[in-house]
Amino acid sequence: MERTIENLRQLIRAGRALTPADTVILNGNLVNVMTSEIYPADVAIFQDMIVAVGDVSAYRGPKTQVIDASGSYLVPGLIDGHIHSECSKLSITSFAKAIVPSGTTSMVSGLDEYISVSGLEGLKEVFAEIKQSPLKVFWGAPYKTPYTFPTSTISCNFNPEIHEQVQQWPECFGVWETVREAVQELDEDTLGALSLAYKNRLPIFGCAPMARGNDLNGYLCGGVRLDHESYDHQEVVEKLRKGMHMVIRESSVTHFLAENIRAVTQVNPALARRVSFCTDDVTAKDVVEKGHVDHLVRLAIKAGVAPMTAIQMGTINSAEAYRIDHLVGSISPGRIADILLVDDPATFKVHTVITNGKLVARNKKLTYDLRAPKRSSLLSSALKCNLTVAKDFEYRVQLANGKAKVLSMEVKGPFVRKRRDVTLDVVDHVVHSDTKQDVLMVSVLERFGINGNKSLAFCSGWGLKAGAMASSAAPDDNNIIVLGANAQDMAVAVNHLITEGGGQVVVKDGKILDFLPLPVGGIVCDLEPQEVARREDGINASARLLGCDLPEPLMYMFFLPITAIPDYAITDVGPVDCVALTTFDPILELIEHT
Amino acid sequence: MERTIENLRQLIRAGRALTPADTVILNGNLVNVMTSEIYPADVAIFQDMIVAVGDVSAYRGPKTQVIDASGSYLVPGLIDGHIHSECSKLSITSFAKAIVPSGTTSMVSGLDEYISVSGLEGLKEVFAEIKQSPLKVFWGAPYKTPYTFPTSTISCNFNPEIHEQVQQWPECFGVWETVREAVQELDEDTLGALSLAYKNRLPIFGCAPMARGNDLNGYLCGGVRLDHESYDHQEVVEKLRKGMHMVIRESSVTHFLAENIRAVTQVNPALARRVSFCTDDVTAKDVVEKGHVDHLVRLAIKAGVAPMTAIQMGTINSAEAYRIDHLVGSISPGRIADILLVDDPATFKVHTVITNGKLVARNKKLTYDLRAPKRSSLLSSALKCNLTVAKDFEYRVQLANGKAKVLSMEVKGPFVRKRRDVTLDVVDHVVHSDTKQDVLMVSVLERFGINGNKSLAFCSGWGLKAGAMASSAAPDDNNIIVLGANAQDMAVAVNHLITEGGGQVVVKDGKILDFLPLPVGGIVCDLEPQEVARREDGINASARLLGCDLPEPLMYMFFLPITAIPDYAITDVGPVDCVALTTFDPILELIEHT
Repeated sequence: MERTIENLRQLIRAGRALTPADTVILNGNLVNVMTSEIYPADVAIFQDMIVAVGDVSAYRGPKTQVIDASGSYLVPGLIDGHIHSECSKLSITSFAKAIVPSGTTSMVSGLDEYISVSGLEGLKEVFAEIKQSPLKVFWGAPYKTPYTFPTSTISCNFNPEIHEQVQQWPECFGVWETVREAVQELDEDTLGALSLAYKNRLPIFGCAPMARGNDLNGYLCGGVRLDHESYDHQEVVEKLRKGMHMVIRESSVTHFLAENIRAVTQVNPALARRVSFCTDDVTAKDVVEKGHVDHLVRLAIKAGVAPMTAIQMGTINSAEAYRIDHLVGSISPGRIADILLVDDPATFKVHTVITNGKLVARNKKLTYDLRAPKRSSLLSSALKCNLTVAKDFEYRVQLANGKAKVLSMEVKGPFVRKRRDVTLDVVDHVVHSDTKQDVLMVSVLERFGINGNKSLAFCSGWGLKAGAMASSAAPDDNNIIVLGANAQDMAVAVNHLITEGGGQVVVKDGKILDFLPLPVGGIVCDLEPQEVARREDGINASARLLGCDLPEPLMYMFFLPITAIPDYAITDVGPVDCVALTTFDPILELIEHT
Repeated sequence: MERTIENLRQLIRAGRALTPADTVILNGNLVNVMTSEIYPADVAIFQDMIVAVGDVSAYRGPKTQVIDASGSYLVPGLIDGHIHSECSKLSITSFAKAIVPSGTTSMVSGLDEYISVSGLEGLKEVFAEIKQSPLKVFWGAPYKTPYTFPTSTISCNFNPEIHEQVQQWPECFGVWETVREAVQELDEDTLGALSLAYKNRLPIFGCAPMARGNDLNGYLCGGVRLDHESYDHQEVVEKLRKGMHMVIRESSVTHFLAENIRAVTQVNPALARRVSFCTDDVTAKDVVEKGHVDHLVRLAIKAGVAPMTAIQMGTINSAEAYRIDHLVGSISPGRIADILLVDDPATFKVHTVITNGKLVARNKKLTYDLRAPKRSSLLSSALKCNLTVAKDFEYRVQLANGKAKVLSMEVKGPFVRKRRDVTLDVVDHVVHSDTKQDVLMVSVLERFGINGNKSLAFCSGWGLKAGAMASSAAPDDNNIIVLGANAQDMAVAVNHLITEGGGQVVVKDGKILDFLPLPVGGIVCDLEPQEVARREDGINASARLLGCDLPEPLMYMFFLPITAIPDYAITDVGPVDCVALTTFDPILELIEHT
């Protein structure tokens, strides 16, 4: 967010009513989140800035556009306090189409999936895309990438040397998603990033689910300012009392708001001051159907929070938590003109959206044709990975024939995998997966042309009776993940992604049942949100045809490489024990035929 | 405020109770300004950091020092939101002795008087002095120096090139005292500083007394975050509603708190959230007698503010306004250990002060001998100014003998001078001042060895019947200001300051009546605060002996060079019309004898 001297000169003159406003919004009721007051007030806008609030008659010129807000309330644009928009598989452009019409005008993000696939140069390309979209992104520099223990392979290793550089960028507003374990384990790179953040006066964004007591104290001594993951409201209360800002998460796969908000509704209403909202990971379908941060505001009101307070949680509280309240979060002179027209604070239906001073959406739709930019080779190059053959997905052991006792990672939720011991057949040196026992093969293939890593392990809980499914979008590394009932279909699935340049695919008997192309970095696409929602439904239905009965088969699969949550995960360096933070050998014992 | 990796490592370990705390504070009641709650809680401190709050039994080791807070409340160290400590004539070391024992542990300051006399190198020396004191200073880089219109002479012209450099310093927390006129007049250097602040995400501190309506809107479009000068509570309310933070000022010479606080007590209690306190300019005497920010907290409570709210105004609200709440303003793990022990939130008597983790004051006194550092030549060099003779202070005109109609600047308050037209005798080409008409000569002499400027004009309202008084401390230029009933005494006064290396002096009939040495930069001294208070009383009494009946004769004089407030001032470039922002000729008409 920069302002040149020439720009400031124009804005200050416009603020003094020496230049007519571009737009005035008349006859609305201002929801003043700074003072918790609601009163009639008009607004004058020049370029992208709110230049006056109150009586704006002096600001009207012959060419000033008038927006009549009669009967409506003026609310600041909503802020998503923590999101990986990439996980929606929508590009920034498509994501803006999905969320801006429902009132989210800013989001705080590490854009870390983009970084993992395209590095700093790709990130700059995404910054440019953001600039021509109606959405603002306040970027936090990832505390370190990859996030994995042990270190897996991605296209960009974010380290203190990179922090030294990017923390000076005007786009950088903090350090992103600093996980507790990295602080607790005194990881050198992490401490380097934090030390620089102190020097640069940048807030440190955290990630500390279930951190309590002394563990929380130690974490806070690293300088972490806020957190977006608390598993119950007592945890929220403790964190608030210890001086943190709390960003309550309500994602497509984890639903915390109704419980977490009890910190405010049941423990102490004064705690509301430092509570805000985020969605973290959302599906296109969810956003299309329910809305985005507006949905969270409504949920909070439904849970008993006063409408003014709930709106503050969706606006100024987030802006203060992230130290961006000089730019967004309120309808005040000098702030960026992100303004919503809402039917009523209590029902909170957003019908008109102004961002950067322009009316961009009415009745849940953008008012203009927003086109995705042409992508450079950085974000559109094919997966740098060799084509595979069935043999690549056969688990080979020294034993020729017999049995193998195997540790299979059983999926227990979107992020949780537990140990399941199974006994499998070994035939001709190959440990065979077994759909009858619900044991499949799973593999991650490095796809940045760095080392050709390929891991292989066993997984359960997926229910596939046949076929395979694969994805080149797979946070946070976004290597190719594939799982399947047989090696042939796994190879077909992976090869299809490589040939097509990224996406998600479901295969059965050598045939492509469904394919969602993700040509931008292999992780997102420029399709319309409704179209992605429809096609996600389709591909999940295809996965169900194979026998999978999980709520979101592809999404559950693409979280498999995340090593942050116990007990197991898999990355390109192997299956990972997330407690010991090491790779492990899934073969527990080999038994010869007797 | 920096944290090395090694330091972070130690602190995080201490936070997890793996290293015993240096100090624990037991049995106190925590005033939790983050949640507006009061409850019993212990505190553990390691090095300069609060590492745990609540049950700290795990943090006690055999060498852990115990502070028993039974019967006391634990309050965060107080913050002065805007102060020129130099105007107290106390060095940082002496000022710390004055204010830390009453609970002020942080102040926000431009340190601009130091900059005016010693530039960036002198400033660095002051930073070093601060570091070894119990006081923290959050420095704002002056938006531009000199502040004067037209430009006067000081030792350092702060411009955008300097901002480019200093805004990167970890000591820099914003842009200091950006006056409305400079923004309104679109001053190029000022806009340059603001543009850089946007880029560097630094808050812009304002100064906009009586800014209302469109003028305020225009000012806010420059990005100004907060203000510390409002002349009535309606002004406070308007600024708050327009999204500013309000720092209410209660200085030694302007008393705004009781009136301004009505914004909260009478208009809307919810406004309190963004209200905090500052003292701006204080005399040693005032601080010694009344206290400092603690005095303001008590005044607010007396005015009807709830004790918790008043304490928040003195702590966390200021910290949030200035974006330093990650460091100070609350008693939370990870914050610097600045903690007060207070008898009761409602009476607010501070009896014990801990700063940077060390107990530094008890019962209004530092517990140790704090010594001022040895000064380098930067801050101890003599005034670079030639000795004067009486003739230098004679106003010469072409007319040999007759009358002169003259514009005399009549003092009407500490910062206000109005026009008074008088007729004076011209004898041998010299316009004679006239004590019978209460008209004196006033002069400012450039003293940095730059150009030898010397201005001369007429002033009224001082009441001197004889003698002269002079000061080398004179914000914001700190050139030598002298006024007197005759040219001889003016020369004696100025020469005494030059010979002694700075201070304040009162002269009568060629004799020094009183002299307060200010050897540090010619603006402050290392004397004990009580001693300075006593000697200020003395020197003001000497001024009264000459006939002056103003409340603070020397202070009123030393504000004469401030051009920011209508109608008149005087700097080294001449007497200034503060409305037209030009120098002016005080001779209105010369009349020959008829």
